Amino acid sequence: MIDTSTSTARPAATDAEILAVLDEHAAAHAARDVQRMIAPYTADATCYTLAPPLKQGPDTPYGTPEGLQAWLATFDGPVLIDYRDPVVTADGDVAFVHTLTRMTATPAGAAGSFSFWFRSTFGLRRIDGAWRVTHRHESTPFHMDGSFRAATDLLP
Amino acid sequence: MIDTSTSTARPAATDAEILAVLDEHAAAHAARDVQRMIAPYTADATCYTLAPPLKQGPDTPYGTPEGLQAWLATFDGPVLIDYRDPVVTADGDVAFVHTLTRMTATPAGAAGSFSFWFRSTFGLRRIDGAWRVTHRHESTPFHMDGSFRAATDLLP
Repeated sequence: MIDTSTSTARPAATDAEILAVLDEHAAAHAARDVQRMIAPYTADATCYTLAPPLKQGPDTPYGTPEGLQAWLATFDGPVLIDYRDPVVTADGDVAFVHTLTRMTATPAGAAGSFSFWFRSTFGLRRIDGAWRVTHRHESTPFHMDGSFRAATDLLP
Repeated sequence: MIDTSTSTARPAATDAEILAVLDEHAAAHAARDVQRMIAPYTADATCYTLAPPLKQGPDTPYGTPEGLQAWLATFDGPVLIDYRDPVVTADGDVAFVHTLTRMTATPAGAAGSFSFWFRSTFGLRRIDGAWRVTHRHESTPFHMDGSFRAATDLLP
């Protein structure tokens, strides 16, 4: 695929700044640090996550720090997030990034870890000089064979 | 939710132009017109769809006009797409939009239609004065009850 990120005139530093947001997001998961996980989000960020409902919010399971802490507690050790070859598109103070993503973690009490791939899109705005996440969309597709099973078995 | 689209300085016309892309996308589906459906996409657009694989491309089922035609053939009559309250974020020549989306269609040969809700994110760039789609991400979440069923039963 052609990387369209090079086609829009902007400081080269922008890509690095935005990729740093993703790196920090992954590092925060590895460290199991909820405050670091949520730090880049604006208060009104719209998050479409792997888990229901359609949209997370202050009244949904994964829409609060407490919910994220409870989610982390379902795993032993680090939650490893690998953003594979993210593509940044940006102009001025707005950017979006899409990337295939691998998560690896060990369920609490389990003998071994699991890994699966999904798709991630981030929408960002630069506010007071810092890139903030205003939108995140994570998903797997689902099998169209009548089973409606989430396709958690796909590889890039 | 606060509409962040009003927080970035830009011509008000931008929002209308981008929403018109979504309106046309929906109208193309209703008309079952594949050429209109694909018209706004750049050749290297990255599409994460409801169906596998992780990413569509020229070698995947829904990555070609022929594949989309075959998909349309699985339905009788119009494929209705309802983008509910899309939120536009844009600056300069880059924009993204997120919106909950309802699809209503009648499987070929079936007596009645079905509807379900999913999440849509579009990434766009303005190229030669026209907004083009460089990224689309559509999904449902999946149930975290061990069943791994796609959550096609959710309402906004």
